[in-house]
Amino acid sequence: MGVVFVIVGITGDLAKRKLLPALYHLTKDGILKDYHVLGIGTRETTEKKILTEAKKFVSKPQTKAWEKLSSKFTYVRGDISKDEIYERLLLHLRHQQLSNKTQLIYYLATLPSFFPTITTQLAKHKLNKNAKIVFEKPFGEDLSSAKQINKEVKKVFPEKQVYRVDHYLGKELVQDVAALRFTNTVLEPAWNAKYIEEVQIILSEEVGVGTRGKFYDKYGALKDVVQNHMLQLLALVAMEEPKDMGSEAIRKEKARVLEVAKPAKAVLGQYKGYTKEKDVQSSSSTETLVALEARVLTKRWRNVPFYFLTGKNLKKKQTSIYIKFKNAACKLFEGVCPLQPNHLVIQIQPDEGFYLVLNGRAPSGGLVPVKMDFCHACTFGPNTQEAYENVFHNVLKGDQTSFVRSDEVESSWKFIEAIKKTKPHIYTHLPPKEAELTSWFLS
Amino acid sequence: MGVVFVIVGITGDLAKRKLLPALYHLTKDGILKDYHVLGIGTRETTEKKILTEAKKFVSKPQTKAWEKLSSKFTYVRGDISKDEIYERLLLHLRHQQLSNKTQLIYYLATLPSFFPTITTQLAKHKLNKNAKIVFEKPFGEDLSSAKQINKEVKKVFPEKQVYRVDHYLGKELVQDVAALRFTNTVLEPAWNAKYIEEVQIILSEEVGVGTRGKFYDKYGALKDVVQNHMLQLLALVAMEEPKDMGSEAIRKEKARVLEVAKPAKAVLGQYKGYTKEKDVQSSSSTETLVALEARVLTKRWRNVPFYFLTGKNLKKKQTSIYIKFKNAACKLFEGVCPLQPNHLVIQIQPDEGFYLVLNGRAPSGGLVPVKMDFCHACTFGPNTQEAYENVFHNVLKGDQTSFVRSDEVESSWKFIEAIKKTKPHIYTHLPPKEAELTSWFLS
Repeated sequence: MGVVFVIVGITGDLAKRKLLPALYHLTKDGILKDYHVLGIGTRETTEKKILTEAKKFVSKPQTKAWEKLSSKFTYVRGDISKDEIYERLLLHLRHQQLSNKTQLIYYLATLPSFFPTITTQLAKHKLNKNAKIVFEKPFGEDLSSAKQINKEVKKVFPEKQVYRVDHYLGKELVQDVAALRFTNTVLEPAWNAKYIEEVQIILSEEVGVGTRGKFYDKYGALKDVVQNHMLQLLALVAMEEPKDMGSEAIRKEKARVLEVAKPAKAVLGQYKGYTKEKDVQSSSSTETLVALEARVLTKRWRNVPFYFLTGKNLKKKQTSIYIKFKNAACKLFEGVCPLQPNHLVIQIQPDEGFYLVLNGRAPSGGLVPVKMDFCHACTFGPNTQEAYENVFHNVLKGDQTSFVRSDEVESSWKFIEAIKKTKPHIYTHLPPKEAELTSWFLS
Repeated sequence: MGVVFVIVGITGDLAKRKLLPALYHLTKDGILKDYHVLGIGTRETTEKKILTEAKKFVSKPQTKAWEKLSSKFTYVRGDISKDEIYERLLLHLRHQQLSNKTQLIYYLATLPSFFPTITTQLAKHKLNKNAKIVFEKPFGEDLSSAKQINKEVKKVFPEKQVYRVDHYLGKELVQDVAALRFTNTVLEPAWNAKYIEEVQIILSEEVGVGTRGKFYDKYGALKDVVQNHMLQLLALVAMEEPKDMGSEAIRKEKARVLEVAKPAKAVLGQYKGYTKEKDVQSSSSTETLVALEARVLTKRWRNVPFYFLTGKNLKKKQTSIYIKFKNAACKLFEGVCPLQPNHLVIQIQPDEGFYLVLNGRAPSGGLVPVKMDFCHACTFGPNTQEAYENVFHNVLKGDQTSFVRSDEVESSWKFIEAIKKTKPHIYTHLPPKEAELTSWFLS
């Protein structure tokens, strides 16, 4: 047996929507061959039912690959706080004829409150040795719980066996941003406080909470996306050049940035009608929108504001990083000023790519913004590999680059806890338009 | 009468192909209304014949505008070295009812050897006062003749009345390059020797000498295009930021660059079959191709080579400036290096615009050059105003920005004379491809 995946939380939403479909795709593409999946859950259900649910999230499933996955899938029902399930897990693993070469991968797609119990139990039953363990986000609910989890995990899994998922990083974002920043001489000298006016990190969604009401109402936007995705984007933009592209070098530089990132002021919002959503408390003051100003206390970023805007029920679905350069002095072209400042936009969702807006001259003599575009999909075709396929693929390869290190997680929670939370404003479709964000935010 | 143009050399090629068509277009566009054209030449011909010849170079001439031009055109035949023609010119001008408000514009479309005689004669007949005088290129045949002309001209026309044409500048190139360089914060910090590896200035033509054999064989590529167009392009790229966009400030900065531009090595070429062209001497050693390395001795450009490539009978017609940035260190992406260096290309002919090539990351993990394009015509439509319309228009407005100052001309000739000329190599369709130029040149 090459690989055994033990997925805890197999009857949950994530397993159905993302994990099982990703395993199917890796099977179809021939990346996964000799493997087995042990899915652990508490529900009374069957393998067939679980797979049928998951199949809905695969477009045009190939019969052969799907059957292969089905034949490699076993459902194991039980309570992960009890000894019994681990004993049964042991039996199942023996059944899979593990060898020294077998990779054992635990995937914890559960609420973070179960993480310490599960890791401790795995160790107690000697199931931790040489195994990799993957933690779904959120990693903790606040700084103290994250620290507690890290502490418990460290006792039984060394950091090199630990994979904290941020599926945004699964989008090859680390490499993409690093390539843009560190292979382009023309951008390098401008990448600092002397030339950059502000950085905006935008993650806006058109949808509301949907079926995630129960989870979301407890966490809110700060914990759901700022603590992880958005702070990771900040780290990628703001980090110093790593000494190499190895995961340790990159995570070290990201961790350094997160350690000195400090929130300044924040405005919270809640979309109108939120408290009437399914599984949301009618008196809820959970934020569904965050507009936040932060600073990165390094020499490179002295006095440069980093604005975060995220929210649900906004006009447009997009994730992007907007880097606004300082405006050129207008003295040379007085008649046609103010100019639009140069800006670079790194697009993450829904389209990948980047574009640079410079000033050019119109034949009429005026200056016009000139958009210079690099559309990833136009050049390379649509990116077929989904984030979660990359997550699995990277765990299999043992590449931790796109996973978050323990100190990064703790710094991110520290950041979130330093935010002064106030009662959220009620909003309806606020404009998340890049160029207007600052003025909107400051007004 | 608003304006009287006195065009010396009205039966020549330039008047036929460019000057009269430009006057027609300015008439059609309503820019020129109340004017008269006195065309001076030596040939036995008629106004009708001259106009019929010129009309061939206007696409779809409008009858009304063409007739208007025809009605405002008088041919004056005579020898411009003799007094008589100036006396007749005086009579003609009286006939045009000049007032204090009338602009009198001399346009000298003759060989430069006639410039001193004409200017001296104009003064002798008191025809220089408040008149503007336009000199076609080439302005002199070498440094000493250019100095001599400047000296004679200065005696009778102050510099503010003098317009030395470089029709490349008539393409609004000065403003375009200044806008690109001085309104884009993101380019500014990289515009120096620390980040720029080399600059290439390319002016390649598909055609041979055609009907210009007699003129060309005497001058060659160095005097025909390097001394003027190409050195002006160098000046625009290399100059320091002027204090304003006024013509004096810009010409001052251009002059400063030209003063410290020095040729290093040069390779000359002559296309195969050149000596069999019409009006070319069979033993001619005139160069039709120049590959030249130059330096600009300022702090900004320390050790940056400026390569010039110009030639006739090459594979492609283009004028462009290729700015190659230094390559990023490859340490981060060892497996996929060497990278293609970032480069910015300012396109002048046949398409106007610019593009920037950065590195992006392919989904496969490799780095790929990403072309970020600004096509002028795609954005603004084709540029309808021809270079010579701008020349006339700027003379009328009294805007000297796109004309060359006396010290610029002299520095340019000094540059040309410092080039060690060697016997030209015979070539057939050498590749003028930007990225390959350096290696081609150095091989």
